[in-house]
Amino acid sequence: MKVAIIGIGLIGGSAAKDLRSAGFCTDITGVGRSAKNCALALELGLVDRIVSKEDAITEADLIILTVPVNILIDELLFILDRISPHQVVTDMGSTKGAIIDAIKDHPNRRQYVASHPMAGTENSGPAAAIDGLFRNKVCIICDKENSDSNAVELVERMYHTLGMRLKYMDAHQHDMHAAYISHISHISSFVLAATVLEKEKDEEAILEMAGGGFESTVRLAKSSPDMWAPIFHQNKQYLLEVMDTYIEKMYHFRNLINKNKTEELRQFMADANEIRKILK
Amino acid sequence: MKVAIIGIGLIGGSAAKDLRSAGFCTDITGVGRSAKNCALALELGLVDRIVSKEDAITEADLIILTVPVNILIDELLFILDRISPHQVVTDMGSTKGAIIDAIKDHPNRRQYVASHPMAGTENSGPAAAIDGLFRNKVCIICDKENSDSNAVELVERMYHTLGMRLKYMDAHQHDMHAAYISHISHISSFVLAATVLEKEKDEEAILEMAGGGFESTVRLAKSSPDMWAPIFHQNKQYLLEVMDTYIEKMYHFRNLINKNKTEELRQFMADANEIRKILK
Repeated sequence: MKVAIIGIGLIGGSAAKDLRSAGFCTDITGVGRSAKNCALALELGLVDRIVSKEDAITEADLIILTVPVNILIDELLFILDRISPHQVVTDMGSTKGAIIDAIKDHPNRRQYVASHPMAGTENSGPAAAIDGLFRNKVCIICDKENSDSNAVELVERMYHTLGMRLKYMDAHQHDMHAAYISHISHISSFVLAATVLEKEKDEEAILEMAGGGFESTVRLAKSSPDMWAPIFHQNKQYLLEVMDTYIEKMYHFRNLINKNKTEELRQFMADANEIRKILK
Repeated sequence: MKVAIIGIGLIGGSAAKDLRSAGFCTDITGVGRSAKNCALALELGLVDRIVSKEDAITEADLIILTVPVNILIDELLFILDRISPHQVVTDMGSTKGAIIDAIKDHPNRRQYVASHPMAGTENSGPAAAIDGLFRNKVCIICDKENSDSNAVELVERMYHTLGMRLKYMDAHQHDMHAAYISHISHISSFVLAATVLEKEKDEEAILEMAGGGFESTVRLAKSSPDMWAPIFHQNKQYLLEVMDTYIEKMYHFRNLINKNKTEELRQFMADANEIRKILK
Protein backbone atom coordinates (compact mmCIF):
# COMPACT_ATOMS: atom_id res chain seq x y z
CA MET A 1 0.00 0.00 0.00
CA LYS A 2 1.35 3.38 -1.04
CA VAL A 3 0.04 6.49 0.69
CA ALA A 4 0.45 10.12 -0.37
CA ILE A 5 -0.17 12.89 2.13
CA ILE A 6 -0.88 16.29 0.69
CA GLY A 7 -0.25 18.80 3.47
CA ILE A 8 2.23 17.40 5.98
CA GLY A 9 1.54 19.39 9.13
CA LEU A 10 0.13 18.36 12.51
CA ILE A 11 -2.67 16.20 11.10
CA GLY A 12 -0.95 14.71 8.04
CA GLY A 13 2.28 14.17 9.93
CA SER A 14 0.59 12.49 12.89
CA ALA A 15 -1.36 10.20 10.53
CA ALA A 16 1.91 9.31 8.75
CA LYS A 17 3.59 8.37 12.03
CA ASP A 18 0.88 5.95 13.12
CA LEU A 19 0.17 4.48 9.67
CA ARG A 20 3.86 3.72 9.29
CA SER A 21 4.36 2.20 12.73
CA ALA A 22 1.24 0.03 12.30
CA GLY A 23 2.56 -1.27 8.97
CA PHE A 24 -0.50 0.03 7.11
CA CYS A 25 1.69 1.14 4.20
CA THR A 26 5.16 0.54 2.84
CA ASP A 27 5.63 3.95 1.29
CA ILE A 28 4.53 7.44 2.28
CA THR A 29 5.11 10.37 -0.02
CA GLY A 30 4.53 13.94 1.04
CA VAL A 31 3.45 17.04 -0.86
CA GLY A 32 3.65 20.50 0.67
CA ARG A 33 3.58 24.14 -0.36
CA SER A 34 6.33 25.24 2.03
CA ALA A 35 9.86 24.05 1.18
CA LYS A 36 10.81 24.45 4.82
CA ASN A 37 8.00 22.23 6.07
CA CYS A 38 8.75 19.66 3.37
CA ALA A 39 12.40 19.48 4.46
CA LEU A 40 11.32 19.19 8.09
CA ALA A 41 8.82 16.39 7.34
CA LEU A 42 11.58 14.49 5.58
CA GLU A 43 14.09 15.15 8.36
CA LEU A 44 11.60 13.98 11.00
CA GLY A 45 10.99 10.80 9.02
CA LEU A 46 7.30 11.53 8.61
CA VAL A 47 7.50 10.82 4.86
CA ASP A 48 9.86 8.73 2.74
CA ARG A 49 10.04 11.23 -0.11
CA ILE A 50 8.84 14.69 -1.03
CA VAL A 51 7.30 14.55 -4.49
CA SER A 52 5.31 16.78 -6.81
CA LYS A 53 1.54 16.66 -6.60
CA GLU A 54 1.40 14.99 -10.01
CA ASP A 55 3.83 12.24 -8.99
CA ALA A 56 2.02 11.69 -5.71
CA ILE A 57 -1.22 11.18 -7.61
CA THR A 58 0.39 8.81 -10.10
CA GLU A 59 2.02 6.61 -7.48
CA ALA A 60 -0.32 6.40 -4.49
CA ASP A 61 -3.08 3.90 -3.78
CA LEU A 62 -4.52 6.21 -1.16
CA ILE A 63 -4.25 10.00 -1.26
CA ILE A 64 -4.92 11.85 1.98
CA LEU A 65 -5.64 15.58 1.81
CA THR A 66 -4.75 17.47 4.97
CA VAL A 67 -4.58 21.04 3.68
CA PRO A 68 -6.69 23.98 4.98
CA VAL A 69 -10.31 23.69 3.81
CA ASN A 70 -10.16 26.71 1.44
CA ILE A 71 -7.38 25.07 -0.59
CA LEU A 72 -8.91 21.63 -0.19
CA ILE A 73 -11.64 22.02 -2.80
CA ASP A 74 -9.26 22.95 -5.63
CA GLU A 75 -6.80 20.27 -4.60
CA LEU A 76 -9.53 17.66 -4.51
CA LEU A 77 -10.78 18.64 -7.98
CA PHE A 78 -7.21 18.53 -9.27
CA ILE A 79 -6.79 15.00 -7.90
CA LEU A 80 -10.18 13.70 -9.06
CA ASP A 81 -9.38 14.92 -12.57
CA ARG A 82 -6.27 12.73 -12.61
CA ILE A 83 -6.81 9.56 -10.59
CA SER A 84 -7.12 6.06 -12.02
CA PRO A 85 -10.04 3.81 -11.15
CA HIS A 86 -8.15 1.83 -8.44
CA GLN A 87 -7.14 4.92 -6.48
CA VAL A 88 -8.92 6.38 -3.46
CA VAL A 89 -8.80 9.90 -2.06
CA THR A 90 -9.96 11.13 1.34
CA ASP A 91 -9.55 14.36 3.31
CA MET A 92 -9.34 15.27 6.98
CA GLY A 93 -10.94 18.73 6.87
CA SER A 94 -13.17 20.21 9.58
CA THR A 95 -15.98 21.22 7.20
CA LYS A 96 -17.71 18.93 4.77
CA GLY A 97 -20.72 20.58 3.10
CA ALA A 98 -18.91 23.02 0.79
CA ILE A 99 -16.39 20.36 -0.25
CA ILE A 100 -19.00 17.76 -1.08
CA ASP A 101 -21.17 20.29 -2.92
CA ALA A 102 -18.18 21.35 -5.05
CA ILE A 103 -17.34 17.84 -6.27
CA LYS A 104 -20.76 16.22 -6.31
CA ASP A 105 -21.01 15.99 -10.11
CA HIS A 106 -17.43 14.95 -10.75
CA PRO A 107 -17.22 11.67 -12.71
CA ASN A 108 -14.76 10.28 -10.16
CA ARG A 109 -16.81 11.41 -7.14
CA ARG A 110 -17.20 7.82 -5.93
CA GLN A 111 -13.45 7.41 -5.45
CA TYR A 112 -13.56 10.15 -2.80
CA VAL A 113 -14.51 9.51 0.83
CA ALA A 114 -15.31 12.58 2.94
CA SER A 115 -14.06 12.27 6.50
CA HIS A 116 -13.28 14.36 9.55
CA PRO A 117 -11.16 12.85 12.30
CA MET A 118 -12.06 14.78 15.48
CA ALA A 119 -8.52 15.10 16.77
CA GLY A 120 -5.92 17.83 16.98
CA THR A 121 -3.91 20.03 19.26
CA GLU A 122 -3.43 23.79 19.33
CA ASN A 123 -0.09 23.34 17.54
CA SER A 124 0.58 23.16 13.80
CA GLY A 125 3.25 22.19 11.29
CA PRO A 126 5.23 18.93 10.89
CA ALA A 127 7.15 19.46 14.15
CA ALA A 128 3.81 19.30 16.00
CA ALA A 129 3.06 15.78 14.69
CA ILE A 130 2.72 13.24 17.50
CA ASP A 131 2.13 9.51 17.91
CA GLY A 132 -1.35 8.42 18.88
CA LEU A 133 -3.08 11.73 18.09
CA PHE A 134 -6.16 9.93 16.74
CA ARG A 135 -6.33 7.03 19.18
CA ASN A 136 -9.71 6.53 20.91
CA LYS A 137 -11.15 9.61 19.21
CA VAL A 138 -14.13 9.78 16.86
CA CYS A 139 -13.90 10.08 13.07
CA ILE A 140 -16.96 11.15 11.11
CA ILE A 141 -17.46 9.81 7.60
CA CYS A 142 -19.95 11.79 5.53
CA ASP A 143 -22.30 10.76 2.74
CA LYS A 144 -20.73 7.32 2.43
CA GLU A 145 -23.51 6.21 0.06
CA ASN A 146 -21.96 8.49 -2.57
CA SER A 147 -18.60 6.73 -2.38
CA ASP A 148 -17.67 3.30 -3.76
CA SER A 149 -17.86 0.64 -1.10
CA ASN A 150 -14.25 -0.45 -1.65
CA ALA A 151 -13.12 3.16 -1.24
CA VAL A 152 -15.09 3.45 2.00
CA GLU A 153 -13.66 0.15 3.24
CA LEU A 154 -10.07 1.29 2.62
CA VAL A 155 -10.62 4.59 4.42
CA GLU A 156 -12.39 2.82 7.31
CA ARG A 157 -9.45 0.44 7.58
CA MET A 158 -7.07 3.38 7.71
CA TYR A 159 -9.02 5.07 10.53
CA HIS A 160 -9.28 1.81 12.44
CA THR A 161 -5.50 1.51 12.12
CA LEU A 162 -5.26 4.98 13.68
CA GLY A 163 -7.42 3.70 16.55
CA MET A 164 -10.51 5.78 15.78
CA ARG A 165 -14.19 5.02 16.31
CA LEU A 166 -16.26 5.70 13.19
CA LYS A 167 -19.55 7.58 12.97
CA TYR A 168 -21.57 8.28 9.84
CA MET A 169 -23.41 11.46 8.98
CA ASP A 170 -24.80 13.59 6.23
CA ALA A 171 -22.27 16.34 5.35
CA HIS A 172 -24.51 19.27 6.27
CA GLN A 173 -25.57 17.61 9.50
CA HIS A 174 -21.85 17.20 10.25
CA ASP A 175 -21.22 20.90 9.65
CA MET A 176 -24.07 21.86 11.95
CA HIS A 177 -22.82 19.67 14.81
CA ALA A 178 -19.22 20.84 14.24
CA ALA A 179 -20.34 24.51 14.41
CA TYR A 180 -22.53 24.00 17.48
CA ILE A 181 -19.89 22.09 19.46
CA SER A 182 -16.32 22.33 18.20
CA HIS A 183 -16.15 25.57 16.20
CA ILE A 184 -17.93 27.73 18.79
CA SER A 185 -15.45 26.38 21.38
CA HIS A 186 -12.57 27.67 19.27
CA ILE A 187 -14.27 31.03 18.81
CA SER A 188 -14.99 31.48 22.53
CA SER A 189 -11.33 30.74 23.20
CA PHE A 190 -10.03 33.17 20.55
CA VAL A 191 -12.30 35.88 21.95
CA LEU A 192 -11.17 35.11 25.51
CA ALA A 193 -7.52 35.53 24.50
CA ALA A 194 -8.26 38.78 22.63
CA THR A 195 -10.19 40.13 25.64
CA VAL A 196 -7.55 39.28 28.21
CA LEU A 197 -4.77 40.66 25.99
CA GLU A 198 -6.69 43.93 25.66
CA LYS A 199 -7.87 44.41 29.25
CA GLU A 200 -4.93 42.99 31.17
CA LYS A 201 -1.87 45.09 30.52
CA ASP A 202 0.23 43.25 33.09
CA GLU A 203 1.71 40.22 31.31
CA GLU A 204 3.23 38.92 34.52
CA ALA A 205 -0.23 38.87 36.11
CA ILE A 206 -1.54 36.79 33.18
CA LEU A 207 1.20 34.25 33.69
CA GLU A 208 0.72 34.18 37.47
CA MET A 209 -3.05 33.90 37.36
CA ALA A 210 -3.18 31.48 34.42
CA GLY A 211 -3.60 28.55 36.82
CA GLY A 212 -7.04 29.83 37.85
CA GLY A 213 -8.72 28.20 34.83
CA PHE A 214 -7.48 30.60 32.17
CA GLU A 215 -4.75 28.40 30.74
CA SER A 216 -6.99 25.47 29.81
CA THR A 217 -9.90 27.63 28.62
CA VAL A 218 -7.68 29.71 26.35
CA ARG A 219 -5.68 26.79 24.90
CA LEU A 220 -7.56 26.69 21.59
CA ALA A 221 -6.73 30.36 20.98
CA LYS A 222 -3.22 29.17 20.11
CA SER A 223 -4.65 27.42 17.02
CA SER A 224 -3.59 28.29 13.48
CA PRO A 225 -5.45 31.20 11.82
CA ASP A 226 -4.61 29.76 8.38
CA MET A 227 -6.47 26.60 9.27
CA TRP A 228 -9.40 28.16 11.11
CA ALA A 229 -10.29 31.27 9.06
CA PRO A 230 -11.42 29.14 6.08
CA ILE A 231 -13.33 26.74 8.35
CA PHE A 232 -15.28 29.63 9.88
CA HIS A 233 -15.89 31.04 6.42
CA GLN A 234 -17.20 27.76 5.03
CA ASN A 235 -19.35 27.07 8.07
CA LYS A 236 -20.75 30.59 8.25
CA GLN A 237 -24.45 29.75 8.27
CA TYR A 238 -24.43 27.47 11.31
CA LEU A 239 -21.76 29.54 13.06
CA LEU A 240 -23.77 32.77 12.93
CA GLU A 241 -26.69 30.95 14.53
CA VAL A 242 -24.69 29.54 17.41
CA MET A 243 -22.71 32.76 17.90
CA ASP A 244 -25.94 34.74 18.20
CA THR A 245 -27.12 32.36 20.91
CA TYR A 246 -23.76 32.67 22.65
CA ILE A 247 -23.81 36.49 22.55
CA GLU A 248 -27.39 36.55 23.84
CA LYS A 249 -26.51 34.27 26.76
CA MET A 250 -23.35 36.21 27.60
CA TYR A 251 -25.38 39.41 27.62
CA HIS A 252 -27.99 37.78 29.88
CA PHE A 253 -25.25 36.60 32.26
CA ARG A 254 -23.85 40.13 32.31
CA ASN A 255 -27.25 41.56 33.21
CA LEU A 256 -27.81 39.05 36.00
CA ILE A 257 -24.52 40.18 37.55
CA ASN A 258 -25.32 43.85 36.93
CA LYS A 259 -28.76 43.60 38.55
CA ASN A 260 -27.51 41.51 41.50
CA LYS A 261 -29.80 38.63 40.57
CA THR A 262 -27.62 36.12 42.40
CA GLU A 263 -30.30 33.41 42.56
CA GLU A 264 -30.91 33.52 38.81
CA LEU A 265 -27.17 33.57 38.22
CA ARG A 266 -26.83 30.47 40.37
CA GLN A 267 -29.61 28.80 38.38
CA PHE A 268 -27.94 29.70 35.05
CA MET A 269 -24.76 27.99 36.25
CA ALA A 270 -26.64 25.00 37.69
CA ASP A 271 -28.25 24.52 34.26
CA ALA A 272 -24.82 24.80 32.59
CA ASN A 273 -23.55 22.14 35.03
CA GLU A 274 -25.78 19.67 33.14
CA ILE A 275 -22.91 19.34 30.64
CA ARG A 276 -21.32 17.09 33.27
CA LYS A 277 -23.97 14.41 32.72
CA ILE A 278 -23.34 14.33 28.98
CA LEU A 279 -19.55 14.36 29.05
CA LYS A 280 -19.10 11.71 31.75
CA MET B 1 0.58 23.29 65.55
CA LYS B 2 -3.19 22.92 65.57
CA VAL B 3 -5.13 23.85 62.46
CA ALA B 4 -8.88 24.37 62.07
CA ILE B 5 -10.45 24.31 58.63
CA ILE B 6 -13.81 25.97 58.31
CA GLY B 7 -15.41 24.62 55.11
CA ILE B 8 -14.00 21.20 54.30
CA GLY B 9 -14.61 20.84 50.56
CA LEU B 10 -12.26 20.65 47.60
CA ILE B 11 -9.98 23.47 48.77
CA GLY B 12 -10.06 22.92 52.54
CA GLY B 13 -9.84 19.15 52.14
CA SER B 14 -6.91 19.31 49.72
CA ALA B 15 -5.06 21.71 52.04
CA ALA B 16 -5.68 19.33 54.97
CA LYS B 17 -4.23 16.38 53.04
CA ASP B 18 -0.96 18.10 52.19
CA LEU B 19 -0.51 19.91 55.51
CA ARG B 20 -0.93 16.62 57.33
CA SER B 21 1.40 14.60 55.11
CA ALA B 22 4.08 17.31 55.33
CA GLY B 23 3.87 17.29 59.13
CA PHE B 24 2.91 20.96 59.25
CA CYS B 25 0.41 20.25 62.03
CA THR B 26 -0.39 17.56 64.56
CA ASP B 27 -4.11 18.17 64.73
CA ILE B 28 -6.69 19.25 62.13
CA THR B 29 -10.24 20.01 63.15
CA GLY B 30 -13.02 20.59 60.65
CA VAL B 31 -16.13 22.73 60.72
CA GLY B 32 -18.86 22.40 58.12
CA ARG B 33 -22.47 23.36 57.56
CA SER B 34 -23.46 20.07 55.95
CA ALA B 35 -23.60 17.04 58.26
CA LYS B 36 -23.08 14.77 55.27
CA ASN B 37 -19.91 16.54 54.17
CA CYS B 38 -18.61 16.59 57.74
CA ALA B 39 -19.10 12.83 58.04
CA LEU B 40 -17.41 12.33 54.67
CA ALA B 41 -14.42 14.53 55.62
CA LEU B 42 -13.97 12.44 58.77
CA GLU B 43 -14.36 9.16 56.92
CA LEU B 44 -11.81 10.23 54.29
CA GLY B 45 -9.37 11.16 57.06
CA LEU B 46 -9.18 14.78 55.95
CA VAL B 47 -9.78 15.96 59.52
CA ASP B 48 -9.18 14.39 62.93
CA ARG B 49 -12.38 15.68 64.46
CA ILE B 50 -15.49 17.59 63.51
CA VAL B 51 -16.05 20.34 66.06
CA SER B 52 -18.26 23.38 66.56
CA LYS B 53 -17.06 26.69 65.21
CA GLU B 54 -16.59 27.96 68.77
CA ASP B 55 -14.41 24.98 69.75
CA ALA B 56 -12.38 25.25 66.56
CA ILE B 57 -11.66 28.89 67.37
CA THR B 58 -10.71 28.10 70.97
CA GLU B 59 -8.33 25.29 70.09
CA ALA B 60 -6.57 26.21 66.85
CA ASP B 61 -3.33 28.11 66.32
CA LEU B 62 -4.22 28.70 62.69
CA ILE B 63 -7.78 28.97 61.38
CA ILE B 64 -8.27 28.55 57.64
CA LEU B 65 -11.53 29.76 56.10
CA THR B 66 -12.50 27.95 52.89
CA VAL B 67 -16.20 28.76 52.66
CA PRO B 68 -17.90 30.55 49.71
CA VAL B 69 -17.04 34.27 49.67
CA ASN B 70 -20.56 35.47 50.57
CA ILE B 71 -20.45 33.53 53.86
CA LEU B 72 -16.79 34.31 54.38
CA ILE B 73 -17.24 37.88 55.61
CA ASP B 74 -19.61 36.94 58.45
CA GLU B 75 -17.50 33.95 59.40
CA LEU B 76 -14.37 36.07 59.49
CA LEU B 77 -16.01 38.71 61.68
CA PHE B 78 -17.28 35.95 64.00
CA ILE B 79 -13.74 34.57 64.32
CA LEU B 80 -12.01 37.93 64.73
CA ASP B 81 -14.44 38.76 67.56
CA ARG B 82 -13.28 35.67 69.46
CA ILE B 83 -9.62 34.94 68.79
CA SER B 84 -6.79 35.33 71.31
CA PRO B 85 -3.67 37.35 70.49
CA HIS B 86 -1.53 34.31 69.54
CA GLN B 87 -4.02 33.01 66.95
CA VAL B 88 -3.92 33.62 63.19
CA VAL B 89 -6.73 33.42 60.64
CA THR B 90 -6.48 33.28 56.86
CA ASP B 91 -8.89 32.57 54.01
CA MET B 92 -8.63 31.03 50.55
CA GLY B 93 -11.41 32.98 48.78
CA SER B 94 -11.29 34.14 45.15
CA THR B 95 -12.21 37.76 45.91
CA LYS B 96 -10.42 39.99 48.36
CA GLY B 97 -11.64 43.59 48.17
CA ALA B 98 -15.06 43.18 49.80
CA ILE B 99 -13.65 40.97 52.56
CA ILE B 100 -10.84 43.32 53.45
CA ASP B 101 -13.13 46.36 53.35
CA ALA B 102 -15.58 44.63 55.73
CA ILE B 103 -12.99 43.89 58.44
CA LYS B 104 -10.60 46.79 58.00
CA ASP B 105 -11.52 48.49 61.29
CA HIS B 106 -11.74 45.35 63.40
CA PRO B 107 -9.41 45.53 66.44
CA ASN B 108 -8.01 42.09 65.57
CA ARG B 109 -7.53 42.89 61.88
CA ARG B 110 -3.79 42.32 62.10
CA GLN B 111 -4.28 38.66 63.06
CA TYR B 112 -5.91 38.08 59.65
CA VAL B 113 -3.92 37.42 56.47
CA ALA B 114 -5.85 37.71 53.20
CA SER B 115 -4.79 35.13 50.64
CA HIS B 116 -5.94 33.48 47.43
CA PRO B 117 -4.28 30.27 46.35
CA MET B 118 -4.79 30.08 42.56
CA ALA B 119 -5.64 26.41 42.46
CA GLY B 120 -8.73 24.31 42.04
CA THR B 121 -10.56 21.85 39.84
CA GLU B 122 -14.08 21.90 38.45
CA ASN B 123 -15.15 19.52 41.24
CA SER B 124 -16.34 20.36 44.73
CA GLY B 125 -16.95 18.80 48.14
CA PRO B 126 -14.65 16.73 50.41
CA ALA B 127 -14.62 13.76 48.01
CA ALA B 128 -12.99 16.03 45.40
CA ALA B 129 -10.01 16.79 47.69
CA ILE B 130 -6.72 15.66 46.15
CA ASP B 131 -3.04 15.53 47.05
CA GLY B 132 -0.80 18.18 45.54
CA LEU B 133 -3.60 20.50 44.37
CA PHE B 134 -1.58 23.59 45.26
CA ARG B 135 1.89 22.39 44.23
CA ASN B 136 3.79 24.72 41.86
CA LYS B 137 0.84 27.10 41.66
CA VAL B 138 0.74 30.76 42.66
CA CYS B 139 -0.78 32.09 45.88
CA ILE B 140 -1.54 35.79 46.18
CA ILE B 141 -1.29 37.46 49.58
CA CYS B 142 -3.08 40.80 49.80
CA ASP B 143 -2.38 43.90 51.83
CA LYS B 144 0.24 42.14 53.95
CA GLU B 145 1.25 45.46 55.55
CA ASN B 146 -2.07 45.41 57.44
CA SER B 147 -1.31 42.04 59.05
CA ASP B 148 1.14 41.30 61.88
CA SER B 149 4.44 40.08 60.54
CA ASN B 150 4.30 36.87 62.61
CA ALA B 151 0.83 36.15 61.19
CA VAL B 152 2.11 36.69 57.64
CA GLU B 153 5.12 34.47 58.34
CA LEU B 154 2.92 31.61 59.58
CA VAL B 155 0.63 31.82 56.55
CA GLU B 156 3.61 32.06 54.19
CA ARG B 157 5.09 28.97 55.82
CA MET B 158 1.80 27.12 55.32
CA TYR B 159 1.68 28.00 51.60
CA HIS B 160 5.32 27.07 51.14
CA THR B 161 4.47 23.72 52.75
CA LEU B 162 1.74 23.33 50.12
CA GLY B 163 4.38 23.99 47.44
CA MET B 164 3.07 27.38 46.31
CA ARG B 165 4.92 30.40 44.97
CA LEU B 166 3.89 33.62 46.74
CA LYS B 167 2.99 36.94 45.15
CA TYR B 168 1.91 40.11 46.94
CA MET B 169 -0.77 42.53 45.83
CA ASP B 170 -3.22 45.16 46.93
CA ALA B 171 -6.67 43.57 47.43
CA HIS B 172 -8.45 45.62 44.78
CA GLN B 173 -5.64 45.10 42.31
CA HIS B 174 -6.02 41.36 42.99
CA ASP B 175 -9.74 41.51 42.26
CA MET B 176 -9.12 43.32 38.99
CA HIS B 177 -6.56 40.77 37.80
CA ALA B 178 -8.78 37.88 38.95
CA ALA B 179 -11.75 39.30 37.02
CA TYR B 180 -9.73 40.01 33.88
CA ILE B 181 -8.08 36.59 33.76
CA SER B 182 -9.66 33.87 35.89
CA HIS B 183 -13.27 34.94 36.40
CA ILE B 184 -13.93 35.81 32.74
CA SER B 185 -12.56 32.36 31.83
CA HIS B 186 -15.17 30.73 34.05
CA ILE B 187 -17.94 32.91 32.59
CA SER B 188 -16.96 32.14 28.97
CA SER B 189 -17.05 28.46 29.85
CA PHE B 190 -20.45 28.63 31.60
CA VAL B 191 -21.87 30.50 28.59
CA LEU B 192 -20.35 27.97 26.20
CA ALA B 193 -22.03 25.10 28.05
CA ALA B 194 -25.38 26.92 28.14
CA THR B 195 -25.13 27.68 24.41
CA VAL B 196 -24.25 24.15 23.36
CA LEU B 197 -26.96 22.69 25.60
CA GLU B 198 -29.53 24.98 23.99
CA LYS B 199 -28.48 24.70 20.33
CA GLU B 200 -27.38 21.08 20.17
CA LYS B 201 -30.32 18.82 20.86
CA ASP B 202 -28.38 15.64 20.04
CA GLU B 203 -26.60 14.62 23.26
CA GLU B 204 -24.79 11.80 21.49
CA ALA B 205 -23.32 14.32 19.03
CA ILE B 206 -22.02 16.39 21.98
CA LEU B 207 -20.28 13.36 23.41
CA GLU B 208 -18.88 12.29 20.04
CA MET B 209 -17.66 15.74 19.03
CA ALA B 210 -16.36 16.70 22.49
CA GLY B 211 -12.81 15.76 21.43
CA GLY B 212 -12.74 18.65 18.94
CA GLY B 213 -11.76 21.14 21.65
CA PHE B 214 -15.12 21.40 23.41
CA GLU B 215 -14.29 19.19 26.37
CA SER B 216 -11.32 21.22 27.62
CA THR B 217 -12.87 24.61 26.86
CA VAL B 218 -16.10 23.76 28.72
CA ARG B 219 -14.43 22.14 31.74
CA LEU B 220 -14.89 25.15 34.04
CA ALA B 221 -18.67 25.08 33.39
CA LYS B 222 -18.79 22.09 35.72
CA SER B 223 -17.80 24.38 38.61
CA SER B 224 -19.98 24.93 41.66
CA PRO B 225 -22.66 27.67 41.36
CA ASP B 226 -22.67 28.07 45.16
CA MET B 227 -19.01 28.99 45.06
CA TRP B 228 -19.07 31.14 41.91
CA ALA B 229 -22.29 33.16 42.17
CA PRO B 230 -21.00 35.09 45.22
CA ILE B 231 -17.59 35.60 43.58
CA PHE B 232 -19.21 37.17 40.52
CA HIS B 233 -21.42 39.27 42.75
CA GLN B 234 -18.51 40.57 44.84
CA ASN B 235 -16.36 41.25 41.80
CA LYS B 236 -19.14 42.91 39.82
CA GLN B 237 -17.37 46.15 38.94
CA TYR B 238 -14.34 44.64 37.22
CA LEU B 239 -16.37 41.80 35.74
CA LEU B 240 -18.82 44.09 33.95
CA GLU B 241 -15.88 45.88 32.36
CA VAL B 242 -14.22 42.74 31.07
CA MET B 243 -17.53 41.16 30.00
CA ASP B 244 -18.35 44.23 27.94
CA THR B 245 -15.02 43.94 26.17
CA TYR B 246 -15.66 40.23 25.62
CA ILE B 247 -19.14 40.81 24.16
CA GLU B 248 -17.84 43.57 21.90
CA LYS B 249 -15.06 41.31 20.56
CA MET B 250 -17.39 38.36 20.07
CA TYR B 251 -19.76 40.62 18.14
CA HIS B 252 -16.87 41.89 16.03
CA PHE B 253 -15.77 38.31 15.32
CA ARG B 254 -19.35 37.47 14.30
CA ASN B 255 -19.44 40.40 11.88
CA LEU B 256 -16.12 39.48 10.30
CA ILE B 257 -17.55 36.04 9.55
CA ASN B 258 -20.86 37.48 8.38
CA LYS B 259 -19.18 39.94 6.00
CA ASN B 260 -16.69 37.36 4.67
CA LYS B 261 -13.75 39.43 5.91
CA THR B 262 -11.48 36.42 5.99
CA GLU B 263 -8.24 38.42 6.09
CA GLU B 264 -9.38 40.48 9.08
CA LEU B 265 -10.62 37.31 10.75
CA ARG B 266 -7.21 35.75 10.23
CA GLN B 267 -5.57 38.85 11.74
CA PHE B 268 -7.90 38.75 14.77
CA MET B 269 -6.80 35.16 15.42
CA ALA B 270 -3.12 35.91 14.75
CA ASP B 271 -3.35 38.67 17.40
CA ALA B 272 -5.05 36.24 19.81
CA ASN B 273 -2.21 33.77 19.17
CA GLU B 274 0.04 36.23 21.06
CA ILE B 275 -1.22 34.58 24.25
CA ARG B 276 1.23 31.78 23.39
CA LYS B 277 4.20 34.05 24.10
CA ILE B 278 2.93 34.95 27.54
CA LEU B 279 1.92 31.49 28.67
CA LYS B 280 5.04 29.66 27.55
